[in-house]
Amino acid sequence: MSAEIEELLKRYQNYPNVVGIIVLDPFAIPIKTTMDYTLTVHYAALISTLTFKAAKMVTNLDSSNELVNLRMRTLNHEVIVVPSESYIIIVIQKPGT
Amino acid sequence: MSAEIEELLKRYQNYPNVVGIIVLDPFAIPIKTTMDYTLTVHYAALISTLTFKAAKMVTNLDSSNELVNLRMRTLNHEVIVVPSESYIIIVIQKPGT
Repeated sequence: MSAEIEELLKRYQNYPNVVGIIVLDPFAIPIKTTMDYTLTVHYAALISTLTFKAAKMVTNLDSSNELVNLRMRTLNHEVIVVPSESYIIIVIQKPGT
Repeated sequence: MSAEIEELLKRYQNYPNVVGIIVLDPFAIPIKTTMDYTLTVHYAALISTLTFKAAKMVTNLDSSNELVNLRMRTLNHEVIVVPSESYIIIVIQKPGT
């Protein structure tokens, strides 16, 4: 896994309210996680599906446009999804940051 | 439409970078828009589908949890979606706010 991703993970892990980080490969397979494996696989499946749909929706509305990131604020957490060609990074943090 | 929503619209409309606001009823039918109708219907269909999926995903991961809002950052815009029992509010703004 590229040094760039390792560097990104280290940076996110030091944020005070981060409760979990997951890195998926382009096929939504978890390749790095700070959470237990069952929850990781559950997040990976649901969030990758939603992210692919969001990315398709964005280009559907405007073919010159592209999804940069997705943030879901829930009662308990904030989930930030950063898709790229080679990885999907998912950061779960306590709200209020 | 409730005074609460009218109030919310007025407030959002005054934000400097807001380029469009759409209010949908619980069935994703546009009931208020500041954008042209074709684009409004297009946004309404795609975003409501994505929002319903995101809301289901959140409760799927944790039944005590709930989607509060969804933010999609794209190359050209930021789309903020605020779902509630009676309305779905979609705000489209230029990034950088």
